[in-house]
Amino acid sequence: MDLQNMVEEVWNSLADQRGAGKVADYIPALAEVDPNCFGIALATRDGRTYCAGDGEVPFSIQSISKVFVLAMALDRHGSALFEAVGREPSGDPFNSIVQLEREKGIPRNPFINAGAIVTTDRLIDDRSTEEAVEELLAALKKMARDDDIRIDKEVAQSESRTGARNRSLAYFMADFDRLLNPVETVLSVYFRQCALTMTCKQLAEAALFLAFDGTDPVTGHVLTSTQRARRINALMLTCGHYDNSGEFAYEVGFCGKSGVGGGILAIVPDKASIAVWAPGLNREGTSLLGARALREIAHRTGWSVFG
Amino acid sequence: MDLQNMVEEVWNSLADQRGAGKVADYIPALAEVDPNCFGIALATRDGRTYCAGDGEVPFSIQSISKVFVLAMALDRHGSALFEAVGREPSGDPFNSIVQLEREKGIPRNPFINAGAIVTTDRLIDDRSTEEAVEELLAALKKMARDDDIRIDKEVAQSESRTGARNRSLAYFMADFDRLLNPVETVLSVYFRQCALTMTCKQLAEAALFLAFDGTDPVTGHVLTSTQRARRINALMLTCGHYDNSGEFAYEVGFCGKSGVGGGILAIVPDKASIAVWAPGLNREGTSLLGARALREIAHRTGWSVFG
Amino acid sequence: MDLQNMVEEVWNSLADQRGAGKVADYIPALAEVDPNCFGIALATRDGRTYCAGDGEVPFSIQSISKVFVLAMALDRHGSALFEAVGREPSGDPFNSIVQLEREKGIPRNPFINAGAIVTTDRLIDDRSTEEAVEELLAALKKMARDDDIRIDKEVAQSESRTGARNRSLAYFMADFDRLLNPVETVLSVYFRQCALTMTCKQLAEAALFLAFDGTDPVTGHVLTSTQRARRINALMLTCGHYDNSGEFAYEVGFCGKSGVGGGILAIVPDKASIAVWAPGLNREGTSLLGARALREIAHRTGWSVFG
Amino acid sequence: MDLQNMVEEVWNSLADQRGAGKVADYIPALAEVDPNCFGIALATRDGRTYCAGDGEVPFSIQSISKVFVLAMALDRHGSALFEAVGREPSGDPFNSIVQLEREKGIPRNPFINAGAIVTTDRLIDDRSTEEAVEELLAALKKMARDDDIRIDKEVAQSESRTGARNRSLAYFMADFDRLLNPVETVLSVYFRQCALTMTCKQLAEAALFLAFDGTDPVTGHVLTSTQRARRINALMLTCGHYDNSGEFAYEVGFCGKSGVGGGILAIVPDKASIAVWAPGLNREGTSLLGARALREIAHRTGWSVFG
Repeated sequence: MDLQNMVEEVWNSLADQRGAGKVADYIPALAEVDPNCFGIALATRDGRTYCAGDGEVPFSIQSISKVFVLAMALDRHGSALFEAVGREPSGDPFNSIVQLEREKGIPRNPFINAGAIVTTDRLIDDRSTEEAVEELLAALKKMARDDDIRIDKEVAQSESRTGARNRSLAYFMADFDRLLNPVETVLSVYFRQCALTMTCKQLAEAALFLAFDGTDPVTGHVLTSTQRARRINALMLTCGHYDNSGEFAYEVGFCGKSGVGGGILAIVPDKASIAVWAPGLNREGTSLLGARALREIAHRTGWSVFG
Repeated sequence: MDLQNMVEEVWNSLADQRGAGKVADYIPALAEVDPNCFGIALATRDGRTYCAGDGEVPFSIQSISKVFVLAMALDRHGSALFEAVGREPSGDPFNSIVQLEREKGIPRNPFINAGAIVTTDRLIDDRSTEEAVEELLAALKKMARDDDIRIDKEVAQSESRTGARNRSLAYFMADFDRLLNPVETVLSVYFRQCALTMTCKQLAEAALFLAFDGTDPVTGHVLTSTQRARRINALMLTCGHYDNSGEFAYEVGFCGKSGVGGGILAIVPDKASIAVWAPGLNREGTSLLGARALREIAHRTGWSVFG
Repeated sequence: MDLQNMVEEVWNSLADQRGAGKVADYIPALAEVDPNCFGIALATRDGRTYCAGDGEVPFSIQSISKVFVLAMALDRHGSALFEAVGREPSGDPFNSIVQLEREKGIPRNPFINAGAIVTTDRLIDDRSTEEAVEELLAALKKMARDDDIRIDKEVAQSESRTGARNRSLAYFMADFDRLLNPVETVLSVYFRQCALTMTCKQLAEAALFLAFDGTDPVTGHVLTSTQRARRINALMLTCGHYDNSGEFAYEVGFCGKSGVGGGILAIVPDKASIAVWAPGLNREGTSLLGARALREIAHRTGWSVFG
Repeated sequence: MDLQNMVEEVWNSLADQRGAGKVADYIPALAEVDPNCFGIALATRDGRTYCAGDGEVPFSIQSISKVFVLAMALDRHGSALFEAVGREPSGDPFNSIVQLEREKGIPRNPFINAGAIVTTDRLIDDRSTEEAVEELLAALKKMARDDDIRIDKEVAQSESRTGARNRSLAYFMADFDRLLNPVETVLSVYFRQCALTMTCKQLAEAALFLAFDGTDPVTGHVLTSTQRARRINALMLTCGHYDNSGEFAYEVGFCGKSGVGGGILAIVPDKASIAVWAPGLNREGTSLLGARALREIAHRTGWSVFG
């Protein structure tokens, strides 16, 4: 298949729908993004990356960062991490606190906000926040083979200013002694990781190891074990879109993780790592056009993990 | 790979653990099953089925029937079926009613009990219960290429006698006008489908079409569309084990559906349909040894859908 | 105070508002009631009853029957009754099932539907349903000193036909083995007690013992102990109006129990027993005009239990 | 009745049970209290106060402060206060957050922690925290006719250090824009009001106005309106003990508010204001011996509001 042609056709087939959905507006820096942006990047085993539209325009990756932080925290703590956070879909919105009360401060999975806060806490571990953030940035740059990845300070500050719900979740877990570090320490890293700015191309390349058994197929770097890469993919498929995860699995059939900035990272095991970006969101907070683009790619390639 | 050898090695490696877990005891007929039973059957595209242990001993398939009823109800109603039942993991146990109240009588997915009751109601549609049950039996016999499949009347009657929770779920949905047929009509079919008695071999062969784009690769019969087969697989992966679905995806990586009789049906797209059976259950109601056997098969074959 | 004058003034002050609220329409017999009906009856220690408007017109007492059934079940089982049903306000609507799942089939209090179904089950005990219903009717006739009290068979049958939610609640409790009798047995009495037809005058007189330490001050019959009468009053005050109980206590300050037929029974300890009736309901299912009439009576008499 | 004799007899009848229950230990200053403390004070219209045991020993009043703050916030904002906080029993523990999510950040009533935090926020209004705290202290001193009432700084600091759950509740409401002031501002007052140190005698005298139509019967000061005093009493009765409120109403029959320091304030309209103190708590956080003492007083005086 001519993949460059395919991603361009997908882009063209949806170009008319640019602007659909609702751009996140809880942060000025997100609200000001051009709603018509639409980018695709698809990275393959041989080191090639096929882009379309705004595939090389940087945007705020937001919750997609949870995937990379999970991979790093898992490497730091091994499966002991799952004593602090579960592995089950929650059936609830991203910021629900009901389940936390029922299950005594242990979040359902690492991709809802509460679970990601715990994962970030374990990534920090006994280090300074600077050290943790530096490690995250360095890892992303290495995985993406690109030094031009940064944290948008304005976005991070806005996240912190509007972060009442995340503070509520974090203090709730602190009340059950579920965090190693003080709430504000954990959140200072959490808000920065959400403010990571990357392009579709960088994202797709940085996540390529997940599609290929934990090893970057281009450089040969072993980034995580085969087992662990598969398991991260499993979590993306069952939990990557909050209470819209089933729908995404049903309609698209790729492992995926969405961010409120309009990005979606999708992993197709043994085939490709794909990132799409369009700021308009559906009711559950997933990029409307992004999900359609991935469904279209699934349709044209026949790459669904389900057959 | 020598698949016959593989399934036998998997069986042998776990034979010492026979009897582990807790046999379902809410029905006499289930409680009386020999806890040491342990069977495996793996069916492939070429029409061969590889069995080990009690792979040809009949058992009560219970909730595994929900997969076949879903396939048939989907063919009857198309995606309109999903106006009556959702597609999201519930994060709740199989018989929870909390979500039903919050979401006004629309169950989260077709594999929790409430959702399966709706699916059965739609399978019946405007027909008699006899007609619906006959169609189900005939379809299973055809798909399994085996006429020796039956409904255990004693089990069906026990299900009905002990079915207070299922009645509660059904009346709850009836209160929201979610059922086409009277509660007892729907349940009379539901209890019979749960009482279907099949062997691992029959199950694996009957479900082979799900692994191969909706078409039985042996007979060439188109049983459902490619799209629909994939989507049923997606539902099995995200919702097939109630509040243990994430764990199963994480540890095994196959699409699967468990039954309280100790059976698990697993689909590996493009590769195989696998059924395992061991009556002892884990806390969430999935066969303990069955899940281990599937994990072992995933490990030895490298067939995980996640890479 | 001239009580006859007072009740007439209250009636007159609200007469313009007749028809306000929404008449219950889930049963034809209730839906057909004239929405402009409005009656008051206030019974005192000396055997006098002061009526206004439609105070002697019979209506369907519905959930007000729960008070009498509770009194009789308490006399039958003593405080052991409270092993089967709690004594706490639920904070939920009358027919919620969420709390039942969390608390393993034990309803919060005897005035939500689930709790009243348990109370009815205990009233039946090991007797026939006929015997239980006869005892209830006989007790009401005796307490009201009036033989003209009956069960409206048409209403009872309608209750049963539309009783899916109550069946759901009852089967849910049966699943936890919380009922002594089969679900349909219990419901056959429950639906009949809800269909009791009484006038405001009969209701106020029948409940007079609750205002006077358990003893009918007119006949001197000891109907229950002082302790028990107080406790039933406490339950009426904290739980008598479902998730509107706090509002009623706050605004009116009487012990009360509402019915979906538009009646409210109010107890003012040491002072009076009051029944009001107006079919239009507020959002929580309490008679809109009835609650206003009681608030006005509380205002004019200064009888609030709160000072 | 010889009230002095009565309170002494009640004290004596329960003296053997001193030490029962579990002393709150989440704060060192509370954990160090002598578990055998047991005090009673009963204030009447004529200005007399009858004490027994440790009735004049200061203790941490904790949540009992919510009653006084409610009275003051109500006087400041009138019934508009109830747009920010409800009036219904919650059926949940004191620190539950589940209801807050369901009802979009509006707490059920002013006596659960979330509701009390809102009430404190409204008491502060647009003033400095110092001003609000000063007003509260001055009011208590005036109502108790005693200048020796203070805030225990060590307790307040401990409350703040261990206040993760309350921070979680406050940030949750802030996320819904339910607070006028920043979270830490509100909590700095909330933690100080909880750290108020008073004796049973001071408490009973300070709350006397609630038993007498809002006016201190000794000084004649109108502290709130008749209507408002009744309504605060109604809230105490229906919501004063979290998910133990029904039990307290059922067993004691007084309006009451408990604190985790072991104090209970009880109001008997038209009769008395009573404070009891014994540090050992029951499972729901109400003083075990304190509740028994009040039940005994209710029994001996026949003062139950329920007849």
